[in-house]
Amino acid sequence: MTTIREATYGLLRRHGMTTVFGNPGSNELQFLKDFPEDFQYILGLHEGAVMAMADGYAQATGKAPLVSLHSAAGTGTAMGVLSNTVYSKSPVVVLSGQQVRDMVGQQIMVASHDATQLPRPLTKLSLEPLSPSDVVRSVAEAIHTANLHPKGPTHISVPYDDWEEQADDNTALTIARAVQDAGALAPERLAEITAAIDAARSPVLVLGPEVDATHANADAVRLAERLGAPVWIAPSPPRCPFPTTHAQFAGVLPANVAGIAQLLGGHDLVVVVGAPVFRYHHIHRGRYLADGSRLIHISQDPSEIARAPFGDAYLAPVADTLARLSETVAAREVEPRQPAPRATAEDRPGLLDPNTVFRAISELAPRDAIHVVESTSTAAPFWSNVEMTEQGSF
Amino acid sequence: MTTIREATYGLLRRHGMTTVFGNPGSNELQFLKDFPEDFQYILGLHEGAVMAMADGYAQATGKAPLVSLHSAAGTGTAMGVLSNTVYSKSPVVVLSGQQVRDMVGQQIMVASHDATQLPRPLTKLSLEPLSPSDVVRSVAEAIHTANLHPKGPTHISVPYDDWEEQADDNTALTIARAVQDAGALAPERLAEITAAIDAARSPVLVLGPEVDATHANADAVRLAERLGAPVWIAPSPPRCPFPTTHAQFAGVLPANVAGIAQLLGGHDLVVVVGAPVFRYHHIHRGRYLADGSRLIHISQDPSEIARAPFGDAYLAPVADTLARLSETVAAREVEPRQPAPRATAEDRPGLLDPNTVFRAISELAPRDAIHVVESTSTAAPFWSNVEMTEQGSF
Amino acid sequence: MTTIREATYGLLRRHGMTTVFGNPGSNELQFLKDFPEDFQYILGLHEGAVMAMADGYAQATGKAPLVSLHSAAGTGTAMGVLSNTVYSKSPVVVLSGQQVRDMVGQQIMVASHDATQLPRPLTKLSLEPLSPSDVVRSVAEAIHTANLHPKGPTHISVPYDDWEEQADDNTALTIARAVQDAGALAPERLAEITAAIDAARSPVLVLGPEVDATHANADAVRLAERLGAPVWIAPSPPRCPFPTTHAQFAGVLPANVAGIAQLLGGHDLVVVVGAPVFRYHHIHRGRYLADGSRLIHISQDPSEIARAPFGDAYLAPVADTLARLSETVAAREVEPRQPAPRATAEDRPGLLDPNTVFRAISELAPRDAIHVVESTSTAAPFWSNVEMTEQGSF
Amino acid sequence: MTTIREATYGLLRRHGMTTVFGNPGSNELQFLKDFPEDFQYILGLHEGAVMAMADGYAQATGKAPLVSLHSAAGTGTAMGVLSNTVYSKSPVVVLSGQQVRDMVGQQIMVASHDATQLPRPLTKLSLEPLSPSDVVRSVAEAIHTANLHPKGPTHISVPYDDWEEQADDNTALTIARAVQDAGALAPERLAEITAAIDAARSPVLVLGPEVDATHANADAVRLAERLGAPVWIAPSPPRCPFPTTHAQFAGVLPANVAGIAQLLGGHDLVVVVGAPVFRYHHIHRGRYLADGSRLIHISQDPSEIARAPFGDAYLAPVADTLARLSETVAAREVEPRQPAPRATAEDRPGLLDPNTVFRAISELAPRDAIHVVESTSTAAPFWSNVEMTEQGSF
Repeated sequence: MTTIREATYGLLRRHGMTTVFGNPGSNELQFLKDFPEDFQYILGLHEGAVMAMADGYAQATGKAPLVSLHSAAGTGTAMGVLSNTVYSKSPVVVLSGQQVRDMVGQQIMVASHDATQLPRPLTKLSLEPLSPSDVVRSVAEAIHTANLHPKGPTHISVPYDDWEEQADDNTALTIARAVQDAGALAPERLAEITAAIDAARSPVLVLGPEVDATHANADAVRLAERLGAPVWIAPSPPRCPFPTTHAQFAGVLPANVAGIAQLLGGHDLVVVVGAPVFRYHHIHRGRYLADGSRLIHISQDPSEIARAPFGDAYLAPVADTLARLSETVAAREVEPRQPAPRATAEDRPGLLDPNTVFRAISELAPRDAIHVVESTSTAAPFWSNVEMTEQGSF
Repeated sequence: MTTIREATYGLLRRHGMTTVFGNPGSNELQFLKDFPEDFQYILGLHEGAVMAMADGYAQATGKAPLVSLHSAAGTGTAMGVLSNTVYSKSPVVVLSGQQVRDMVGQQIMVASHDATQLPRPLTKLSLEPLSPSDVVRSVAEAIHTANLHPKGPTHISVPYDDWEEQADDNTALTIARAVQDAGALAPERLAEITAAIDAARSPVLVLGPEVDATHANADAVRLAERLGAPVWIAPSPPRCPFPTTHAQFAGVLPANVAGIAQLLGGHDLVVVVGAPVFRYHHIHRGRYLADGSRLIHISQDPSEIARAPFGDAYLAPVADTLARLSETVAAREVEPRQPAPRATAEDRPGLLDPNTVFRAISELAPRDAIHVVESTSTAAPFWSNVEMTEQGSF
Repeated sequence: MTTIREATYGLLRRHGMTTVFGNPGSNELQFLKDFPEDFQYILGLHEGAVMAMADGYAQATGKAPLVSLHSAAGTGTAMGVLSNTVYSKSPVVVLSGQQVRDMVGQQIMVASHDATQLPRPLTKLSLEPLSPSDVVRSVAEAIHTANLHPKGPTHISVPYDDWEEQADDNTALTIARAVQDAGALAPERLAEITAAIDAARSPVLVLGPEVDATHANADAVRLAERLGAPVWIAPSPPRCPFPTTHAQFAGVLPANVAGIAQLLGGHDLVVVVGAPVFRYHHIHRGRYLADGSRLIHISQDPSEIARAPFGDAYLAPVADTLARLSETVAAREVEPRQPAPRATAEDRPGLLDPNTVFRAISELAPRDAIHVVESTSTAAPFWSNVEMTEQGSF
Repeated sequence: MTTIREATYGLLRRHGMTTVFGNPGSNELQFLKDFPEDFQYILGLHEGAVMAMADGYAQATGKAPLVSLHSAAGTGTAMGVLSNTVYSKSPVVVLSGQQVRDMVGQQIMVASHDATQLPRPLTKLSLEPLSPSDVVRSVAEAIHTANLHPKGPTHISVPYDDWEEQADDNTALTIARAVQDAGALAPERLAEITAAIDAARSPVLVLGPEVDATHANADAVRLAERLGAPVWIAPSPPRCPFPTTHAQFAGVLPANVAGIAQLLGGHDLVVVVGAPVFRYHHIHRGRYLADGSRLIHISQDPSEIARAPFGDAYLAPVADTLARLSETVAAREVEPRQPAPRATAEDRPGLLDPNTVFRAISELAPRDAIHVVESTSTAAPFWSNVEMTEQGSF
């Protein structure tokens, strides 16, 4: 016979989720008992740090980590970082401990009252199974939901007395499941988008975080080179989808309506891939897009597609779409672009110009360095000076 | 200049949503003022009836209707029927009237307090825009979300003083948007599923409501005939995905674990398309699937895929997948099946046997009749006797 | 040994809840099995009717009925009437059936997915116990919450396989509990309000539904007569708190800002008891209260108190406060008021004037008749003509 | 004319809320502009610290602080500490910044999508006004709700472009409001509880955090001395309601069912005031209360009352009830209790015994020191050694 705990570790192993990030309390001890030798537990002493490590792990490896948190206050403390995980589309499965089943309703100590509410509206799914017999399937549901596009965090709360219960026969079937996103851009749609691009006088590409999240950076380079088009990164970027050293790299779009409309205004076709249209920040009003411009929006996030205020949208897989478009669009003869000149540093005595700092960082950093930025006021010199060429650099 | 109301009607017209079902109260008068001549308003005097008509319209036409309901009590009364709309995957956009913006917080008469909560968790999306300037985009978001797969109901609440406000320049861009689901089954996945089917000794098909909802009934017939395999309808069917008169039609699966496992037990491969795995109802415990059987689950509903307790799953468009599989799988030579014999009617004096009733109905009904069933206790004789051959028959 | 079902009936019996209103489906059969002989089940075939009967029962008897509804669609259909129950402050306990515990997560047939969400934000509490062992305590929590002020509906969802489980020893303690609202107006506050009233040149009373809901109608009459002040009913009344035949009865306040400010403008003190301040409906803007007027607001609903835009508020029991104020305020010598003349009926050939209709109804109705009004456009002639003198008349 | 910002500061000033704790981002700048000179802004660089300071301020002063946080991630980070604020019943008003009204729906940068959800189910109220005109009233609603019993945190989200809008005439009425909890224990109930206590052979008192939160510590001492009864602190205490140096102080109840039943078993009457019954933590099963014991539960938190599994409950103000009972119950002649002997410290070379540490702390601390404990494993020696005699010591 197998316990729910053993079956759950079997399920995690099946999905390659042998790295667990956590900060345990009393409710988690039953789950962590007999922690398997092939699993690794990364301890953090603050839930914000735990979530941030897990998010970074997901971005760096493309794999979904399990995050084991304490109930109420423990899970609560992670909500801040979790709200960023949503927009970086990192598949993170948060498992909150819970008091014993029959006492939660009394709101005893470290019970999470109404536990599925707390992580809403941030997680794609928030579950608390009604019975120990449904725990393994519920964890599986949280894993699959996190991994299906658009990827993102999910949450499940499990009373700690469930872990010692016996798993039934059907559990093996649940563990054995393989689940995959099986879609690709439809051939008729490929033809349609190809025709629009080929007919454009001056197309421009705008790339967003899903390009990096789906490891499609190289495909994006191929498409961009075939078109000879300038490439912008969508505003407020949580990831870097295109090499900043590439001659066609034009920079990061400003996070305001008027600024974007102006910069993209000269192009008759704007193709946005894997980004919201657009994640503005600063409020300078204006028309979203200049007359004579058309915008095509390709994303695998239905919410991004549905809520955008303008642009014709295709809900389609980002990596597959970039790969196939890079073969079907007509290659163009374009004058090689001059890379944008770097900003000049103006150091004053005792004060280093940010351009100087970032250039020094860039020169010293190894090629596969991962850059983390906390200073929004120096975003411009950062993107102008720091060379990032690999998937997962930012 | 254009008002928000005029712009909203323009948006609805753009999406072919000129049929409005409703039951108005005081909050809706501003929206219905100057009702355009090319629109049709279908009045129902109970919100349950209004929602049911709208659901039927969506099923019959494949188009998304607008449902205009009164606030709190009006919208509340529709929640029962709405819970069925979820499982029939009908794209219905519910627009609830609301009191004037600055007084809702006081919970004055016919204000909907916390209006986005009420239709949760039934709708895919529930919105109340924070500003009149965001109304047209929000209605568009509700329309696009309802229409992207898996289709389903959405909800938006709009204060009635918004309708007379002016729409800004960008509104035209929002109205002009085209949005489409652009995915198809990926070629590698097609090969994988085809190989699994061709290798099977005795495959069987189980079809669910998404086959009918995506108008893929004829594709399902083609695939079934190519394989010569029996075809079951998934349990608790809200739609009819396969002609009940077809020689390969095996019936409706029973809604319990043991019954399904037994009926599918002789097959080494079960291919479920467009259904949950499975929507059980009666509780007879047992193993979900016999040893030696494998189940492949194809659906375009990520929740269905993620929550299923067994089977290997592909998230892929149902209609496209059926169409392409019907060309790639190897045609089999199979003995023509004998249609299942019909149940014998045993009428007693003064009591008609249900078999007699349903056979009479079936003989009298025109080919394109739409059957609506309210009696769950006579499901077996219904499916055994009533001939349904067209999309949208049930 | 006792089953959860038996213990639950014991709990209901302890609280005098032997009248059950319902419309059952498959999930409710286990609860209704062996239905005790001293209980009465009132069947309704539409959940709106079931809820409305239960609400009426609560208003007429002051007791909390149990409402037994089917899951998802059944409970959903009741949401419309439930939204009125909130404002009439009727203590109604809604018990929704649910599928078996371990299958709800799969969203099988007639399972209520995320069952506690649906009745929000309407109910004071919405629960689904995590374990059979917590069912009796949870039902008790729903009963106590419904009955504590401000009274109102609560909701609980129970998987049907729980009913046959065994209740543990502590259950008897839960059933035995007595719970009561033990507060009264504090003496210092009584003195404060009394002084304010005695100092007023021309006080006026405005009464709301909590006066009738707490059976304080006679206390209100005593206070009004001591003061000789006119008495208005707060706008959009769901109950009748004062005899419409009383000489001091001034009518129902109009449901708009300007109208109320004008009618109350001549009074230097407005005392509102047991009503929101105010439940407006029609929007005529203006200043809430004339200069020189002060408003004192007495209610036992913290939400009503907190959200009101004006007036000095006391959170205190309505019945106790009226009873004690009627003894402490100084009796005034006031000219007996002439009752407001009734509107003149203007019948035209073939068309009865509403005044005629309502006067006829009033003359024919017994003294303890209960009046139910569905026509908001004839509110004025209704209140002018129909004589209601008893608690629970409306 | 007055802006919404100026009016809001006027409202805060009216309620003595001139101390603001916060950690600002871009959305908060408009609110903090022209920050009034009579206000104090306490900056914290982590939202957990900000909330903890605010909670401490509320506990120490009895006044409600305003907490100004950034949207999504900023507010999210505070959720952990907020979950403790709920159980210490500290009235804290959290004001979250929000992006401009018309762009929130697009989920632009630092917009809080579905902003009222995040702090649920922790806060008593979570609001986002639909219009600038409703901002001042909404902030007032959040303040009043936080301050009405049972006190606790509330949340409001305000788009930053609202602050510059004009306040209308009625705003002055909203600012001027006085709101108070006006209830006291009803005389009949006082008599009832008094009789029960006087009839008891061996009553015992159990005190909880609401005694300290309502500054009723001295009343509790008076009642205890009149009865000569031992006084326990309810388990898992977030506050200290009784002097630990008092001869009748018996200790902190253990946080498990069997332990409490055993310790209280010799008493025929247990009077619990201002605590849940009970906030267990460790799970040792057993009967909640010994045969022959009766428990009376007095609290002003309806949820605590409704959800308790045993005991007869009175919903009544804690401070008033303690004060009045201390006058009405019969004084008893009781042998003076010997204070419980302190645990003996067993220091080993290089290892200080916790008893030694806490005794040293207690001897060095001033009388009005505030003790904060993070180590749950040394709870017993802490409560045994540290002398706390004042309200707000813990």
